[in-house]
Amino acid sequence: MRTHYCGNITSAAIDEEVTLYGWVDRRRDHGGVIFLDLRDREGIVQVVFDPDTNEHFERADKVRSEYVLQVKGRVRARTEGTINPNMSTGEIEVLGKELEILNSAATPPFQLDEHIEVGEDVRLKYRYIDLRRPEMLDKLKLRSRVTSSIRRFLDDNGFLDIETPILTKATPEGARDYLVPSRTHEGKFFALPQSPQLFKQLLMVSGMDRYYQIAKCFRDEDLRADRQPEFTQIDIETSFMDDQQIMAITEGMIRELFKEVLDVDLGEFPRMPYAEAMQRFGSDKPDLRIPFELVDVNDLMQQVDFKVFNGPANDPKGRVAALKVPGGAKISRKQIDDYTKYVSIYGAKGLAWIKINDVAAGIEGLQSPILKFMPDEIVTQMMARLEVADGDIVFFGADKTSIVNEALGALRVKIGEDLDMIEGDWAPLWVVDFPMFEENSEGNLTSLHHPFTAPACSPEELEKNPEAALSIAYDMVLNGTELGGGSVRIHQPDMQQAVFRVLGIGDEEAEEKFGFLLDALKYGAPPHGGLAFGLDRLVMLITGAKSIRDVIAFPKTQSAACVMTDAPGMADNKQLRELNIKLREKPKAAE
Amino acid sequence: MRTHYCGNITSAAIDEEVTLYGWVDRRRDHGGVIFLDLRDREGIVQVVFDPDTNEHFERADKVRSEYVLQVKGRVRARTEGTINPNMSTGEIEVLGKELEILNSAATPPFQLDEHIEVGEDVRLKYRYIDLRRPEMLDKLKLRSRVTSSIRRFLDDNGFLDIETPILTKATPEGARDYLVPSRTHEGKFFALPQSPQLFKQLLMVSGMDRYYQIAKCFRDEDLRADRQPEFTQIDIETSFMDDQQIMAITEGMIRELFKEVLDVDLGEFPRMPYAEAMQRFGSDKPDLRIPFELVDVNDLMQQVDFKVFNGPANDPKGRVAALKVPGGAKISRKQIDDYTKYVSIYGAKGLAWIKINDVAAGIEGLQSPILKFMPDEIVTQMMARLEVADGDIVFFGADKTSIVNEALGALRVKIGEDLDMIEGDWAPLWVVDFPMFEENSEGNLTSLHHPFTAPACSPEELEKNPEAALSIAYDMVLNGTELGGGSVRIHQPDMQQAVFRVLGIGDEEAEEKFGFLLDALKYGAPPHGGLAFGLDRLVMLITGAKSIRDVIAFPKTQSAACVMTDAPGMADNKQLRELNIKLREKPKAAE
Repeated sequence: MRTHYCGNITSAAIDEEVTLYGWVDRRRDHGGVIFLDLRDREGIVQVVFDPDTNEHFERADKVRSEYVLQVKGRVRARTEGTINPNMSTGEIEVLGKELEILNSAATPPFQLDEHIEVGEDVRLKYRYIDLRRPEMLDKLKLRSRVTSSIRRFLDDNGFLDIETPILTKATPEGARDYLVPSRTHEGKFFALPQSPQLFKQLLMVSGMDRYYQIAKCFRDEDLRADRQPEFTQIDIETSFMDDQQIMAITEGMIRELFKEVLDVDLGEFPRMPYAEAMQRFGSDKPDLRIPFELVDVNDLMQQVDFKVFNGPANDPKGRVAALKVPGGAKISRKQIDDYTKYVSIYGAKGLAWIKINDVAAGIEGLQSPILKFMPDEIVTQMMARLEVADGDIVFFGADKTSIVNEALGALRVKIGEDLDMIEGDWAPLWVVDFPMFEENSEGNLTSLHHPFTAPACSPEELEKNPEAALSIAYDMVLNGTELGGGSVRIHQPDMQQAVFRVLGIGDEEAEEKFGFLLDALKYGAPPHGGLAFGLDRLVMLITGAKSIRDVIAFPKTQSAACVMTDAPGMADNKQLRELNIKLREKPKAAE
Repeated sequence: MRTHYCGNITSAAIDEEVTLYGWVDRRRDHGGVIFLDLRDREGIVQVVFDPDTNEHFERADKVRSEYVLQVKGRVRARTEGTINPNMSTGEIEVLGKELEILNSAATPPFQLDEHIEVGEDVRLKYRYIDLRRPEMLDKLKLRSRVTSSIRRFLDDNGFLDIETPILTKATPEGARDYLVPSRTHEGKFFALPQSPQLFKQLLMVSGMDRYYQIAKCFRDEDLRADRQPEFTQIDIETSFMDDQQIMAITEGMIRELFKEVLDVDLGEFPRMPYAEAMQRFGSDKPDLRIPFELVDVNDLMQQVDFKVFNGPANDPKGRVAALKVPGGAKISRKQIDDYTKYVSIYGAKGLAWIKINDVAAGIEGLQSPILKFMPDEIVTQMMARLEVADGDIVFFGADKTSIVNEALGALRVKIGEDLDMIEGDWAPLWVVDFPMFEENSEGNLTSLHHPFTAPACSPEELEKNPEAALSIAYDMVLNGTELGGGSVRIHQPDMQQAVFRVLGIGDEEAEEKFGFLLDALKYGAPPHGGLAFGLDRLVMLITGAKSIRDVIAFPKTQSAACVMTDAPGMADNKQLRELNIKLREKPKAAE
């Protein structure tokens, strides 16, 4: 058995006999002595073999990168000049006495330190080599610590870990389901769950009181950079707790997690209504570390004789907002053009701006192509409201409210990053008081969260004025990322049916899709609510990973494939016949 | 917030004001006072409402079974005559002061204590009601404690919890895969994993050193009573440990689990070679609590002139064995007929027997239809070997070895249960030294475990005499149930290819199916091995559940359906078109 992991040997072990297992990270030959850097999960240690170890020296001479070794030896202090302060084991080395080659290794398809040049496809094909890189190992180790910390917290707080099915019925999250043909029920299909939502509610109806699960969820969607077809959710539900209590306990969990794995005290999370978040940051997941925000100038712009501004300013569904970037006057025309292109992704038709060169000079001290369209008085009032200073820049958005919010919200984050203006490491936040519904592109109301979210009003008020109804929902946001979201759920059939009616889900459809839930609500459902956190995103934030693929052991590519195992693969006809399906004959493109 | 769970209030809380949440288990009206049994996850407490609580009394008068309540009141001692020693809260009651009805409940489809009469289909359709039964709640609570205990043990021993994919490639376990059509890769399919076997081996190649996962696995097989299409596996893999070390650490885990959740000390597990287990118990998962075993009588039977016995006795692939049941002479002819029918399930063509009425009387003291076919001397020798006593019965199996083992092995367990002869509560055991291969019905060699299991010999010896090769595999058995099994894996490509050759897997097939594994073994794979435990079966054993469905929150029926959600369900044509599949037009039966 090993006595130590390579990376954990310190000066405290000097003169101890050690047995190590690991991979050859590097082999050098220097002054007739062989130096091996031996690597395992915990790090690297230097092992020295002198010629007087005979056959062990000869083996040490033979080994190559990534050979697998067992080494026995004695720990000794390095001599003065050879101490390496950049290595955790840099003060010591192991004087090798025995070496056994447990396995040889062909020359790897890439050297561990050359992963950037080889590109992600090669890394994914040889994932087992890519995962040897300390940086990748550390991410998976930390992921394991995160789940362990969260499980302990939930176990200790009386939450029961309960598994819900993977082979289940289509769920109402709205994304595309993965389907699994049933062999025994001809022509029918299971769906892989987009979340355990309905099952966890049923567990509350069954009296489990506090439930959690670290659950695999599935969405067959075209993948964006930070999405995977299968992802992992920390899924939580409780009975007899209100929104404040649920937020308190889950905030406690995240706070304890950060303390435990990062030794960071997040403090108490501020709370912000959805409307305020949209108003000030154009986003329901604002990054509070960026020290500037959106300011409404609707009232001022209603008066100007410039259609680009006064149109949206006078439209009840429009908005004109200003984003003052302190010190942003240094942004070049070229950069402004780039930002204009950037906001156009979100539908913005342009990006007006004013540079503040000299506040004392009044209008003369401003520089902008749009000044000529606005009365000086309005400009002066605006500058006063924005409290501008020399060297600032102000950007403007004027359009449908949703476009202004998205465009300026994204611009704020982009400029914050580009100008390196992010202040502090961690800015957590609860966003609350969400609307129950939003309008989709066809002008119909859809649930902002999901149709089981409880409104903060009566069923009658809800049906009378659904656009105004707020939900008892809450999102936990960290550094501009939504870590998790949840709500108090509807626990009475009347209310659930009222919501279905607002959503245009008829009785028959409701019965077919959610009959079992409506039934369950009849038979004594307790008040209940919960939350789900995205584990992958949480680990990304904690590890500072740039890609979700870096925090998943065996991720899929953006086309939802595994290049290592070559999945998905062909199925044979016998299998398909058993499943009562066949492939479509014509390629999709030809239809 | 609740101050107590109902079931947790004891005399220690007398005079305390409590706030409780729960369901009305029973409501009685007695002497102008209302008694409510209030039930939650932890149990039941009696709440008394006097008329002087006014509207609260009136509400208490209105509630019905399964209504959901909030109750505030004061704990008091019950009067002498009303103490209920059968209830954990039977010494106290709560004098109700406030009652709020949080939800009403329609009359449930079955009363909680009538679950037996309603049958399992109704229970599964209204699973959320069935799960309210304390007996079901307790099983899920215990399941959560089991996973929590196991996770803590593994976390504390340096195992990393790492998730492997659910959408993956067909795996080689040999059962039928569930397939998932890919939308983005036309005509191709993912398979749901039958186990994370190859991924966990790759994690060892990547240097994770110690891995675990409580993993969902899937098999699309016709379900037997104790099977489910999706089941859960405690999956473990380590590097640089040999079989002894792996057995020691996983045995420690199970021992700690039993200590923690049952306060049972399992002691050190005995070890038994596969050959001995088959010889003595006719099973590779013997229940050591049954105090009788199989005894070989081949040598004696070779000499008799009775074809039923001397045929198998002289066949190298045959076996004649005796099973002596102490005190079994009381078994009736009718029961013997039933046992004869029982062993015929396993292919036994009959069931010979001898009752020992009076040992002192020699042959005269025996009773059996087969005595006439055997020389007295042989019978006498046999009785001596079996050390029979008055009142015993001896059964015989004579057939192909595999049939004798299966039939007498099963008979042994059945009689042990029928005659209530099981001794002790827990009998754990390691079965070791399995053969590498067994012959399938077509006479080809297949892996007894799986093709990645390491043999205890060299590749050359393996290929020369595969039938004789033993594997470095081990099964953990408890009370006649296989709790888990594992092996040291092959870590060198030469050996892996030798095994593939023995199995008749050609180079091309090996490359196509396992190319990524063969590759991985080339690039510095460490010696590694592991084990997987069946969580559902482990929880069944610990809870004494009779059905696997009782330890799963939302199980499938034997036809692999969920009667609650009505899954699997229909898919619409748009979905199928996107997945590039269609239903077969002709019903399967018509083909």
